[in-house]
Amino acid sequence: MSESRKKAALDYHAFPVPGKLSIELSTPAETQEDLSLAYSPGVAEPVREIARDPELAYRYTGKGNLVAVISDGSAILGLGNLGPLASKPVMEGKGLLFKRFAGINSIDIEVESESPAQFIETVASIAITFGGINLEDIKAPECFEIENQLKARCDIPVFHDDQHGTAIVTVAGMLNALEIQGKSIEDARIVCLGAGAAATACCKLMMAAGAQPEHITMLDSKGVIHSGRTDLNQYKALFATPTSARTLDDAIEGADAFLGVSGPNLLNAAQLSRMAVNPVVFACSNPDPEIDPALAHSVRDDLIMATGRSDFPNQVNNVLCFPFLFRGALDVRATIINEDMKLAAVEAIRAIAKEPVTDAVRRAYGGVDLQFGRDYILPKPTDERLLGRVAAAVAQAAVDTGVAHLPFPDHYPLAGLADIKL
Amino acid sequence: MSESRKKAALDYHAFPVPGKLSIELSTPAETQEDLSLAYSPGVAEPVREIARDPELAYRYTGKGNLVAVISDGSAILGLGNLGPLASKPVMEGKGLLFKRFAGINSIDIEVESESPAQFIETVASIAITFGGINLEDIKAPECFEIENQLKARCDIPVFHDDQHGTAIVTVAGMLNALEIQGKSIEDARIVCLGAGAAATACCKLMMAAGAQPEHITMLDSKGVIHSGRTDLNQYKALFATPTSARTLDDAIEGADAFLGVSGPNLLNAAQLSRMAVNPVVFACSNPDPEIDPALAHSVRDDLIMATGRSDFPNQVNNVLCFPFLFRGALDVRATIINEDMKLAAVEAIRAIAKEPVTDAVRRAYGGVDLQFGRDYILPKPTDERLLGRVAAAVAQAAVDTGVAHLPFPDHYPLAGLADIKL
Repeated sequence: MSESRKKAALDYHAFPVPGKLSIELSTPAETQEDLSLAYSPGVAEPVREIARDPELAYRYTGKGNLVAVISDGSAILGLGNLGPLASKPVMEGKGLLFKRFAGINSIDIEVESESPAQFIETVASIAITFGGINLEDIKAPECFEIENQLKARCDIPVFHDDQHGTAIVTVAGMLNALEIQGKSIEDARIVCLGAGAAATACCKLMMAAGAQPEHITMLDSKGVIHSGRTDLNQYKALFATPTSARTLDDAIEGADAFLGVSGPNLLNAAQLSRMAVNPVVFACSNPDPEIDPALAHSVRDDLIMATGRSDFPNQVNNVLCFPFLFRGALDVRATIINEDMKLAAVEAIRAIAKEPVTDAVRRAYGGVDLQFGRDYILPKPTDERLLGRVAAAVAQAAVDTGVAHLPFPDHYPLAGLADIKL
Repeated sequence: MSESRKKAALDYHAFPVPGKLSIELSTPAETQEDLSLAYSPGVAEPVREIARDPELAYRYTGKGNLVAVISDGSAILGLGNLGPLASKPVMEGKGLLFKRFAGINSIDIEVESESPAQFIETVASIAITFGGINLEDIKAPECFEIENQLKARCDIPVFHDDQHGTAIVTVAGMLNALEIQGKSIEDARIVCLGAGAAATACCKLMMAAGAQPEHITMLDSKGVIHSGRTDLNQYKALFATPTSARTLDDAIEGADAFLGVSGPNLLNAAQLSRMAVNPVVFACSNPDPEIDPALAHSVRDDLIMATGRSDFPNQVNNVLCFPFLFRGALDVRATIINEDMKLAAVEAIRAIAKEPVTDAVRRAYGGVDLQFGRDYILPKPTDERLLGRVAAAVAQAAVDTGVAHLPFPDHYPLAGLADIKL
């Protein structure tokens, strides 16, 4: 990043006031009368009502539209373990996206903890404050236990976006890419480079979408995860297959799809050249992909490629999912986010890319009429259809699977992004 | 409270959206360019800067203007232990007051805990998120240990408003009432009915302001707290005196001041009639005072009386203090709120009552020109001088006592309440 871009980013965070979020009043507080309703003595009434029936917290407080973005700062972006305080700009940024894209109030909570157990206790102790919890930037493998235990202990949705948000958008893009290439997920041979939180979640969701376990070869820093490995933790062991492949060179031979969730420049031209006809390459390492897009396209003109970057086609961007997924979950007061809800989000996202773009998206992209194809397999984040469609699909799946406290909302379909007023 | 008032209070909390707070963006988030600064890739810059120098969290995040209002719901208003969820409307109300009166962003955190130790661990683990912590509605004696330990463990101000906010406003009013009655705090014989969090904090601060320990008689539900009692916890034992008084009847004889922080109608007419000439009665039990104001004035025409109610003169209202106290503490980044800062707040609050009211206050009170005297010993909450004066006094005291990270702010004196833009 250039010095001027760095300065712009720092200035953006420092002005007009430090940070990116402001807590404002949603009720009048001008007169003595207003204050006597907002606080003593009037506030005693909702207190008594909630003490009588806890469900009424959703009627008389902001709980139902409040999502905590919680981190210990142990895996910040691609920057590593810089601690909770340094993670705060990212968590506030997530809050900004929740509001901007889905009208959700979101506050960041940074946790100082010495163990996953302490982190879990802390978050479980404050969970009652919120309508949902978005875990963020927590390193593997601790993130798995943290998420599993919090899901078990909390009666509100707990969602580790680095795992599942990434997986939903990745799988939506992957399914579309495979369709364009004339391949089916059931038959595709897939190589996943990386075995962290995002990689394992992506592979699990690809399997839920039809991928065959024996067709997926996952690699960690020591090579292929195969049945003979004795150094695997329980999370990686799930992906061990009885393959004879040991290296990326071995695994990539004839592969239909490559998913990189690892680091820069780890896929070389020779390896790409040995993939099957019409290969799919998702090189999601940020900011530097597993293979440079220009190089990749020069090697294979039958390629479909996606990255994590906004300056190349087909950006795998979590913002296509998490605001809308939580919107749907909150609106039917789902107690968890289950596999059906995730798959519903996948289908809703991929469907939008197959439809003609809206006027607003066309204008935002210089008048270009984006067409479903090699360079347009995922919707743009500003596509105003995402809110209504993804939230509705998630809400419907929650209702259908019996995890919703409320029926499918009367006020659906939701208005587009331009009209958010929730 | 009438049924129509109850409905108004519930409607206020339910509409236009549930609750009273909304989290909004303080930076632009419209274009792709905005989003690339607010989140990936731009957000990596403030992350790196804060990792390099933790102080920069105050420049690049909202930490420095964010106060958590934290409760376990064990002593909600006068309603008792209704649990954390039922406390949420009160905590959100506190957030509303923080913003309305002092431009402070405030988020409520409700904690489910089984012990003070668990509560302390939870709050200490998330404290790094905030610039200050306002503890609220936590029962005694647990609140004392909780506050003491959190003050020791956190490098940001931790303030139990039910104790110290109440004490600051009470002592400001008490000093002014005694002055009008021609008494000095050093000589005054004071009876304190109640021995909970607020009562003990009030008595400690009165002593810091000059009251003599042997002149203060405190009573709990078992009677006078005297040196012969063997049933006192460490917090009450501080107030045991070698008095022969055993009951309120004994203690009230010839007392100059009565401070009630107990329950309704516990001071009777006969007791009041036996107080010294020009007595001061602070009957702060809410909503029903220790003695009905009409009854009290009929018994003693030389009385000065204050209550916790807004519909009688001289309301002891915490909102006269906590927003402005935190404003001053945050603006110089004080690490604690110490006794000097509390006493500075006392003096700033009481001084305003002695000055002519502003035009805005006169208008708000029906054109009446409130004059320092029996019916006007404390400023009105909407007095626009409170922000600048109390915050400045607290900030100066923090600087003077060496607990401030920053010098007295350039942008002081602060504008009044109507112009809050922080």
